[in-house]
Amino acid sequence: MSEAVSPLASPFPPLPAIAGATPHIVRAGYKDWGRCDLTYVELAEGTAVAGVFTRNVCCSSEVELGRDSVKQGRARALVVNAGNSNAFTGYRGREAVEQIMGQVADHLGCPREQVFVSSTGVIGVPLPKDKARAGVAAALAAAPCSWEDAARTIGTTDTFAKGALATAVVDGRTVTLAAIIKGSGMIAPDMATMLGYVFTDVAIAPGYLQELLSAAADRTFNCITVDSDTSTSDTVLAFATGKAGNQQINCSGCPGADAFAAALEDVCRQLAHLVVRDGEGAQKFIAVSVTGAVSDESARRVGLAVANSPLVKTAIAGEDANWGRVVMAVGKAGEPADRDRLSIGFGGIWAAREGQPLADYDEAPVAAHLKGQDIDIAIDLGLGEGRATVWTCDLTHGYISINADYRS
Amino acid sequence: MSEAVSPLASPFPPLPAIAGATPHIVRAGYKDWGRCDLTYVELAEGTAVAGVFTRNVCCSSEVELGRDSVKQGRARALVVNAGNSNAFTGYRGREAVEQIMGQVADHLGCPREQVFVSSTGVIGVPLPKDKARAGVAAALAAAPCSWEDAARTIGTTDTFAKGALATAVVDGRTVTLAAIIKGSGMIAPDMATMLGYVFTDVAIAPGYLQELLSAAADRTFNCITVDSDTSTSDTVLAFATGKAGNQQINCSGCPGADAFAAALEDVCRQLAHLVVRDGEGAQKFIAVSVTGAVSDESARRVGLAVANSPLVKTAIAGEDANWGRVVMAVGKAGEPADRDRLSIGFGGIWAAREGQPLADYDEAPVAAHLKGQDIDIAIDLGLGEGRATVWTCDLTHGYISINADYRS
Repeated sequence: MSEAVSPLASPFPPLPAIAGATPHIVRAGYKDWGRCDLTYVELAEGTAVAGVFTRNVCCSSEVELGRDSVKQGRARALVVNAGNSNAFTGYRGREAVEQIMGQVADHLGCPREQVFVSSTGVIGVPLPKDKARAGVAAALAAAPCSWEDAARTIGTTDTFAKGALATAVVDGRTVTLAAIIKGSGMIAPDMATMLGYVFTDVAIAPGYLQELLSAAADRTFNCITVDSDTSTSDTVLAFATGKAGNQQINCSGCPGADAFAAALEDVCRQLAHLVVRDGEGAQKFIAVSVTGAVSDESARRVGLAVANSPLVKTAIAGEDANWGRVVMAVGKAGEPADRDRLSIGFGGIWAAREGQPLADYDEAPVAAHLKGQDIDIAIDLGLGEGRATVWTCDLTHGYISINADYRS
Repeated sequence: MSEAVSPLASPFPPLPAIAGATPHIVRAGYKDWGRCDLTYVELAEGTAVAGVFTRNVCCSSEVELGRDSVKQGRARALVVNAGNSNAFTGYRGREAVEQIMGQVADHLGCPREQVFVSSTGVIGVPLPKDKARAGVAAALAAAPCSWEDAARTIGTTDTFAKGALATAVVDGRTVTLAAIIKGSGMIAPDMATMLGYVFTDVAIAPGYLQELLSAAADRTFNCITVDSDTSTSDTVLAFATGKAGNQQINCSGCPGADAFAAALEDVCRQLAHLVVRDGEGAQKFIAVSVTGAVSDESARRVGLAVANSPLVKTAIAGEDANWGRVVMAVGKAGEPADRDRLSIGFGGIWAAREGQPLADYDEAPVAAHLKGQDIDIAIDLGLGEGRATVWTCDLTHGYISINADYRS
């Protein structure tokens, strides 16, 4: 963890134990730092798993193997290495992941593809197999730890530990979702990766869990951006142990399916927001709401064009209601838009409507809104019913200091 | 012009007069600044014109009208307003442009569509018609000026005047190209626009001039990026007066056609590089060369993904040969790439070949290269014959200072 905590940091929530999911942490020594850096979560037999992974073509072996393994739908363990992303390391990197899968599978007596591995940290250095072997051996014998300890251990240059909690009533029983995450996109000097994990005691079919996770990710993780740079290792996995004892959810019509889906999306949104709140150099949390687009997907793309615009992000950092830069970013998105129907607002107040600045635009309340930490930008395209909200942070000297004032 | 000159600035070249193209400058007073801000170039009858314009959907009326006018192929005048981009100003902005076109056309006795207008500066404020009318009247009566004066007058927050020169032998005669440009993408607080103009005495058919300009733009202006933000007003126009007296060029087989095409691409590349050299906060000029792509267009997209990556740009600012970030940016480009065939180099030295870091990689000469002002990044995808080079600058504290430490 970094010394300086983000000004947008949130306290770690009181995450309860999840029956059938037990975290442990140890120090494998991947980096020369005095902290634990290997997290091991043992999962009960029959745990359902679903996952979403980076679309970066240069992905790590962890991502390749995880994407294959998730198809069979069951998980017995998760191992997360911090300090080395093992990306762009060729066959040597892949051997290290396969070694960890084999070591844990042998211990638990399960198929290797039920062991999920993630790694985060420097790119281009093969994960050292000896340190991994000793670390995993220690983890298999370690005492359980808290979710907060696990959240802290999967972090690299994160400035605070990030967790989320939700519950839902399913089939008359309360199910619990405890989730942890690290990162903020390509996060810091030589470090990569957003890694997120949801643990729940609900009983659910793996295929349906995957369906719900993919849909939730589209509206949460796929709607955040810090710097437009897509990591080689981004991974979100959901594990459902089934220990709540509800009748298994396997379709949208099942009792409690909607309640669980809403709770899952809730924790995913919480986690996504936490990543933005730890964005490199972030001073402000920005929500960009797009309405009136030709489709929801078109709205999302317009929102991301605005959220990724360095000129919009620096304007917000400067507390400047520079709607001209928002117009520019909408226009470059490559999506259907009509300059003469476009409206732009900040903090609930329109600055421009239907292609023209408002004659009676009162900048005082907008200026006051921009001095706050939570900034709302509204964009109405005036074309259709499509809508989306994306979240980002401002672009400040802090980002440059973290990423440029540094030599690897 | 800004006070602090870019460390990458080039001196203005000795641009000669172009027969049939005469620049003039006056002060219209669009902004409260003590300098000329209206440029008027009178063009001889029969001057051929071609143009390329921003693809930003929220473009200015100047761009809309110019895109229409260029189709008829002839030009008698160019008017450039600095200090107000007149973008996102609705019908009032359009009326101001039409007023200027009418005023100059009446004076010259030519069709209105032979008068080309560009504007650059603040977005969202209609160009004041009274100031424009008085400014144009003064310009029509003003004495001629130098190309350097014109280059300085079209600028807004540019830190140096930018010009380019080339000659070609066509049909036994030497033809001259004098060109000026302003901007560096969306350039500065509330300012927009890259505006470039090429003046030449060659005789050429408008349709063929357009063909050559479009092709040159694809390999020059469309291969530069400062911050990935596309202005609402970007415009490049080429004017050919025909005064060199060569037999008119109207196809690729004509005498001198290849020589002229090469000279045109040469000045376009010079202008494009000058814009990058005045990129906001730029300390280093970066060339990203991509080879082995499935097509030239695919290579260009991969190059732009790298050139637009904040993490790559901050790494170069920090003089850090961080090839892991280049791998990341290649992988997120959305183009065909194979991690295990990918090679990355700096300053002519490979750091990684075919998906793996080089065991005998010598970082010392690479570190020395990165301390320089001109940085070369080489990317070989190992898939095909497609290639492209794109140019950008680094991302520094200067960019943040210019764009965030500011209130409009």
